[in-house]
Amino acid sequence: MRIVVVYSGGLDSTVLLYHLRHEGHNLRALSVDYGQRHRRELDAAAEIAAGLGLEHRIVELTGLGTLFAGSALTSTAIAVPREEYARQNMETTTVPNRNMLLLSLAIAWAAGQHDDAVAFAAHAGTTLTYPDCRPEFAAAMDHAARLADWRPIAVLAPFVTWRKADIVRRGEALGVSLGRTWSCYVGGVRHCGECATCRDRRAAFAEAGVSDPTEYNH
Amino acid sequence: MRIVVVYSGGLDSTVLLYHLRHEGHNLRALSVDYGQRHRRELDAAAEIAAGLGLEHRIVELTGLGTLFAGSALTSTAIAVPREEYARQNMETTTVPNRNMLLLSLAIAWAAGQHDDAVAFAAHAGTTLTYPDCRPEFAAAMDHAARLADWRPIAVLAPFVTWRKADIVRRGEALGVSLGRTWSCYVGGVRHCGECATCRDRRAAFAEAGVSDPTEYNH
Repeated sequence: MRIVVVYSGGLDSTVLLYHLRHEGHNLRALSVDYGQRHRRELDAAAEIAAGLGLEHRIVELTGLGTLFAGSALTSTAIAVPREEYARQNMETTTVPNRNMLLLSLAIAWAAGQHDDAVAFAAHAGTTLTYPDCRPEFAAAMDHAARLADWRPIAVLAPFVTWRKADIVRRGEALGVSLGRTWSCYVGGVRHCGECATCRDRRAAFAEAGVSDPTEYNH
Repeated sequence: MRIVVVYSGGLDSTVLLYHLRHEGHNLRALSVDYGQRHRRELDAAAEIAAGLGLEHRIVELTGLGTLFAGSALTSTAIAVPREEYARQNMETTTVPNRNMLLLSLAIAWAAGQHDDAVAFAAHAGTTLTYPDCRPEFAAAMDHAARLADWRPIAVLAPFVTWRKADIVRRGEALGVSLGRTWSCYVGGVRHCGECATCRDRRAAFAEAGVSDPTEYNH
């Protein structure tokens, strides 16, 4: 299949690229610069996609800031919460409706190129899953994408029932350089080790029993 | 209900604003500047929303050009087809997956503001309906939007089974200044009268039996 992969440069979507490539699909990668503070993630995305020889486009959507002025991800005025995931934290660290937005862009590109599908790295959380990472959301988007254009486009979410530790194990098995992927929301030179995504990343390696190559500040 | 209306400044979405306002809803209007050539439409949107005292935001998404370099709507290198609607023409004059993109943005804003719904002016075409204006697409997006966040958001498409002439009649009944709305894809000072949307607009007034206040060049 010809598939557009929603690709952030993070651990999950990097393993997704390798996973779909391993299955023999023809991939292109789409990243979005929506003004997130962790632009380090986009640099990682560009490097890894280039290393795989994939066409990769970064769509500049900083205009989204017009709507999401209050999100810690897109504003430097709000501190990133340095605690475990909880609903309150997710509400401040996420762009509302982010996955539908990203999928819409991927579907648009796929429609223009007559591709068969788009894919995203939604997975189950260890304590709480994002609403737009649930299997029922992925299924709803698959249904909508099949109707959005004259040619049906599928929405694939092969990790949707996996935990992050499962993704780490799959990445290890596929020989992914997991240390080159970027998770930290703070966006310094090294992973901070304290924000919710760093804690989540570290816990996933521990749970998977895979040695964590990430350099953390703390 | 508190509703975000996808608002282009065109005839259909302007009548939708008046229609939902007449029903007593609390509205906000969202327009997108995705690099369309008919920016005149965005000026009309701002004027009309201001006249109604509505909060109106224009999200700048010209970064979409990275994906849609080949569309006549966003490129000055491709002539706008000056014929009746037909599938071939629609494919060159539309941004792929446009309605899902616009709805995604509206749902994001609605989620951030704890609104109840978003609305768009999809309607049936006289000869051929766009794929993402079909009732089944609107229903699929409604289903997805109810799952995208913890609070369900509805997707409303009250004109989805109407013809454009029905919208003209509704606008006339509600006292909308239809002459202030903008349809032309060419984007001059006056409507060109020759492009597909101008022909569609003119035909809708004729079919509705409503006097057409639009100034056309031809």
